[in-house]
Amino acid sequence: MAEFKVTPWDVEGMVDYDKLIKEFGTQPLTDELLEKTAVLTKSELPLYFRRRFFFSHRDYDLVLKDYEEGRGFFLYTGRGPSGPMHIGHIIPFFATKWLQEKFGVNLYVQITDDEKFLFKPNLSFEDTKRWAYENILDIIAVGFDPDKTFIFQDSEFTKIYEMAIPIAKKVTYSMAKAVFGFTEQSKIGMIFYPAIQAAPTFFEKRRCLIPAAIDQDPYWRIQRDFAESLGYYKTAALHSKFVPPLTGLEGKMSASKPETAVYLTDDPEEAGKKIWKFALTGGQPTVKEQREKGGNPEKCVVFKWLEIFFEPDDKALLERYHACKSGALLCGECKRYLIKKVQEFLKEHQKRREKAKDEIEKFKYTGELAREQWDKAIPEPLRR
Amino acid sequence: MAEFKVTPWDVEGMVDYDKLIKEFGTQPLTDELLEKTAVLTKSELPLYFRRRFFFSHRDYDLVLKDYEEGRGFFLYTGRGPSGPMHIGHIIPFFATKWLQEKFGVNLYVQITDDEKFLFKPNLSFEDTKRWAYENILDIIAVGFDPDKTFIFQDSEFTKIYEMAIPIAKKVTYSMAKAVFGFTEQSKIGMIFYPAIQAAPTFFEKRRCLIPAAIDQDPYWRIQRDFAESLGYYKTAALHSKFVPPLTGLEGKMSASKPETAVYLTDDPEEAGKKIWKFALTGGQPTVKEQREKGGNPEKCVVFKWLEIFFEPDDKALLERYHACKSGALLCGECKRYLIKKVQEFLKEHQKRREKAKDEIEKFKYTGELAREQWDKAIPEPLRR
Repeated sequence: MAEFKVTPWDVEGMVDYDKLIKEFGTQPLTDELLEKTAVLTKSELPLYFRRRFFFSHRDYDLVLKDYEEGRGFFLYTGRGPSGPMHIGHIIPFFATKWLQEKFGVNLYVQITDDEKFLFKPNLSFEDTKRWAYENILDIIAVGFDPDKTFIFQDSEFTKIYEMAIPIAKKVTYSMAKAVFGFTEQSKIGMIFYPAIQAAPTFFEKRRCLIPAAIDQDPYWRIQRDFAESLGYYKTAALHSKFVPPLTGLEGKMSASKPETAVYLTDDPEEAGKKIWKFALTGGQPTVKEQREKGGNPEKCVVFKWLEIFFEPDDKALLERYHACKSGALLCGECKRYLIKKVQEFLKEHQKRREKAKDEIEKFKYTGELAREQWDKAIPEPLRR
Repeated sequence: MAEFKVTPWDVEGMVDYDKLIKEFGTQPLTDELLEKTAVLTKSELPLYFRRRFFFSHRDYDLVLKDYEEGRGFFLYTGRGPSGPMHIGHIIPFFATKWLQEKFGVNLYVQITDDEKFLFKPNLSFEDTKRWAYENILDIIAVGFDPDKTFIFQDSEFTKIYEMAIPIAKKVTYSMAKAVFGFTEQSKIGMIFYPAIQAAPTFFEKRRCLIPAAIDQDPYWRIQRDFAESLGYYKTAALHSKFVPPLTGLEGKMSASKPETAVYLTDDPEEAGKKIWKFALTGGQPTVKEQREKGGNPEKCVVFKWLEIFFEPDDKALLERYHACKSGALLCGECKRYLIKKVQEFLKEHQKRREKAKDEIEKFKYTGELAREQWDKAIPEPLRR
């Protein structure tokens, strides 16, 4: 069996997701839970759930029960602004948007400009604040409800510090070290950071649901250890797989290797060229062989990208699968199809991203939920 | 020679202050510096300086130079709100008030309700916030300029978190451990705290002067290590001695032993009884012996309290000294004199403390300096 490694700071090799569920001690996202989701939302499931891009969870059953019984829940996710966002970063936000829309719940998006500055030796605070702005535009472009979504930067919404304090009294150096691998040379800001990341799970006295890639799960284990002792819920989570890099099915896309990813701000023409040049397919070495033996969609990044995001039509995807297997479809055609889909997406996203510049103030400060949170943060005499 | 120990969390034994200057590597507060202070402020020095209650410093010479050459400086001090304040806590605030008034400079007073909650296992966050309110009243009663003084609680003025981040990227766990003695079981909030305490030294792009008891000096050594690398000044400090407990010249007053201290909120009658009962004097066992041999003002807490704070008249103090040495003065008379002075002080202080309830908003939020700091902390769209 292929070796693989998944930690919050590293994903290597071909990931065995069933094994990951056992290793991390999470639960598989069952047919039953997905059916219940469809029933409660009176909606068809989007491809992220239908196709098991989200495949594992913690306490999602309890989230649905809370919703069913009127206690409700809220969503929390985040982004570490250390560079531009790519396709792999944005897909979980689309799944989150679906959840917000269908369940009608609040969403908190933490932009951890403090974390990225602290953990990246070569980034200045100015850098991460600048990336925060850029990344927020991409997030807004997904189309969240501006009155039910609060996007906050840790360096600005510093009320988060006060909320982190009781958490930081529950977590010892030894506990944090076990999860994050700190050493004597770790900076004291890094050591404190887990408290800042856990704080938003207490923004409401309801259960918190975090949709995120499974590598983020260890961060929440500490929260689940002490949450109840502070009178709150253990946070729930929905875990996604990774979007594979263009260059192969192993690992995840990396900001330091531009050929592995399509960035949301890439020029569509250039993105097309990049896919054409770097995308790994499951095809045979020659057209002749392909016609005879057929391709391997299971080993094909192009097919994976279509499956995960770019081909929402199940019937079309299945036809493509069989056409590939039978040798009727050649890799060039398939790549061109993906390129068209990616370019359409980028054009549309970039248009919405431009519009987001006018909406940023609402999501960060003046929307209903944002205003409510800031009102709690600013002392009364200064609000007059 | 008597053993003694001075760390930020413990003072034991009879302190040898000259030895402390050598051990801590600070500078003695020389006649020359005090004369320069008098000249620059065009004022007579108050007893705290005249009588060397402040006895040591770091870079106070540079502070005076900055002032002289028009660059100015600012003052920073603080209070950890874990209980009521006593005489020993308030005296450095009087010295600070003198410095503010005479140099006309800004003062920042940090109320560390986060620190006390994090470091005291038995205090709740609500407890330290409540003590913050009580302590702030005592501090305001000292008579600071409400437009040049910003009193802020860490749990409220959380902008401090953002300012602490670049500091927290400079300090490793190992550095913090060396100063604070952290262990594997230390809470991650405690480990981060040194960054929060250092942040106010960067509130202005001028040199910061911290008047505080010498046991606080180690906290600032870390600041002095990295300040210049962040483009700021190493902080300067003026170090005071400790006000001895009523019960003897060793150690310092302790909140856990009420007989050692006079609290600012003590009923003046009760305070008088406490002094009468517990104050250690340098007297002889009998009146007869006292008349023959004379007393020991050097070993007398009553005399020390008069010297440090309650007898500002140098001539009167000297006469008292000689009267004691000669046997003319008995301990009872001296105690009664101190009691009268303490009671007068308490009555006056408690009156001003009552008035402080109407001024608290100005010092915390709406005074000129407070407003300026909050304006930096609240994002523009929320200030409209």
